Amino acid sequence: MKTFIGVDLGGTNVRAAVVREDGVIQCMKKSRSCPERGAESVMETMISLIESLEGYEDCEGIGMGIPGPIDTIGGKIIVSTNLPKLIGFPIAEYIEKHFQKPAYMDNDVKVAALGEAVLGAGKGYPIVYYVTISTGIGGALVIDQKVVSGQNGHAGEIGNICIDRNRKKYNILNAGAVENEASGTALTRKGKEILGEHISNAGDVFEMARGGDEKAIKLVDDMAYDMAMMLCAVGHIVDPHVFVVGGGVMKGKDVFFEKMERFYRTMIHDGMQSVVFKEALLEEPGIVGAAMLPMTKGRKLC
Amino acid sequence: MKTFIGVDLGGTNVRAAVVREDGVIQCMKKSRSCPERGAESVMETMISLIESLEGYEDCEGIGMGIPGPIDTIGGKIIVSTNLPKLIGFPIAEYIEKHFQKPAYMDNDVKVAALGEAVLGAGKGYPIVYYVTISTGIGGALVIDQKVVSGQNGHAGEIGNICIDRNRKKYNILNAGAVENEASGTALTRKGKEILGEHISNAGDVFEMARGGDEKAIKLVDDMAYDMAMMLCAVGHIVDPHVFVVGGGVMKGKDVFFEKMERFYRTMIHDGMQSVVFKEALLEEPGIVGAAMLPMTKGRKLC
Repeated sequence: MKTFIGVDLGGTNVRAAVVREDGVIQCMKKSRSCPERGAESVMETMISLIESLEGYEDCEGIGMGIPGPIDTIGGKIIVSTNLPKLIGFPIAEYIEKHFQKPAYMDNDVKVAALGEAVLGAGKGYPIVYYVTISTGIGGALVIDQKVVSGQNGHAGEIGNICIDRNRKKYNILNAGAVENEASGTALTRKGKEILGEHISNAGDVFEMARGGDEKAIKLVDDMAYDMAMMLCAVGHIVDPHVFVVGGGVMKGKDVFFEKMERFYRTMIHDGMQSVVFKEALLEEPGIVGAAMLPMTKGRKLC
Repeated sequence: MKTFIGVDLGGTNVRAAVVREDGVIQCMKKSRSCPERGAESVMETMISLIESLEGYEDCEGIGMGIPGPIDTIGGKIIVSTNLPKLIGFPIAEYIEKHFQKPAYMDNDVKVAALGEAVLGAGKGYPIVYYVTISTGIGGALVIDQKVVSGQNGHAGEIGNICIDRNRKKYNILNAGAVENEASGTALTRKGKEILGEHISNAGDVFEMARGGDEKAIKLVDDMAYDMAMMLCAVGHIVDPHVFVVGGGVMKGKDVFFEKMERFYRTMIHDGMQSVVFKEALLEEPGIVGAAMLPMTKGRKLC
């Protein structure tokens, strides 16, 4: 069975694994990424880590998932808060030269989306829309196992879609941006305001909703409705076969997921009701998805 | 130079043309479609029309643009108000068998989008988002010269995207659906309400705005803002290289187009500002775009 190297490069750690084409992780290792030491140092760390993996020489190619917008054609980071010294560095080319194997990179959300589309909850569906609800909200469109990155690597920045123009503006995002209204961060903020200062995360809000607290249930309903409103835009633009939803906030799926789907179905045309909602499946979408980049030839659609 | 047959099949007329690969229409003819006579009758009319075109035998393939959602894989109409007797009829297969040449079909908006992407204002751009603002509002995503149709042929039904949930519900579309707020029909309705009963179409509103009428200018500003809000969703989902805008309402482009673009640019991330706004170019996007279906191998992405 063919194998690929998947790398998850972040501001704190870099993880690398040998992944089989069926998604099984054969071995995985982790190291500090120490990005303050500069691009070449991070490259050497990544190379050593990969070379410490048993069987790395037999892999067909290398895929890397990295936070922030990625120039997938040039194999470079466009913008990064965690890895500023790596911006513009030809990462994919450097790794490709060293290993003499094809190397690709993409944004961490897009890589997770690819993993889910190829081997996870989206397997077998031609058009997969992946959504992650966590601290923030992000997404990715995967068509025929290729990720649509967009002109600037910003395709999928759905957290900035306005779901109600009459909300308050909190930050650089649009007033009413779904990320400021329905993310884990937003639910925590609203929980503190409405339910009290003892709310420390979205999980606390979900727990109160489970217990039957009406104000908490209202918060969850609103969050589900706001998410549905954003997904309604996705639906009318790409009419996907499946929505795959992942991210930390899915720990509250028993409380909000069915509601979100029900609201969504009231907002779309009759002819679009065949869409399916699924929970993300992979335990390590970042690593497995990154490994799928060379397997699916890496070159994204656009 | 290669040639293709482009067909524009509507509820009243069917038009067919021999189109060169550079988009030049060599000859075009029109006939009544008489859809009430049933599918086979319409097929015979279409076949006779095509066979009356000089040089039709030399064409490489046939492409058809038809209103409403299309099953592009099966080559069938899914839903149609104008051609109800043709729903489910294997149109593409029938035409393919008769002419022994590849035949494809897609929705009329998607076909126009393909024409613009291949030979019109979107030529040379990898990701084109085409928008038509007319009686209604529709769109289509074209990636690498392939149209994304969606699971149910509903990709691009952007008229139903909600741009402000606090608006009135007028019809089957969502309350605040952009089509009910910024289309030609919507502008006419609002014009009648605000400017007076003498307003008979969107052009009258544009004309008063040109003349400096403040209420008319406000209507146009609102329309431009509502359109920008919807395009903002498109932008964050697909991050296109270019928006190509067509449709009858573009007759008022001098009044609203720049405003719409300016509003849009305030709603998107800095890294997405390289997007370009263009006016649709083709004089016969429906016919030329339909002819591009066989040229671009017809098989849409999904």
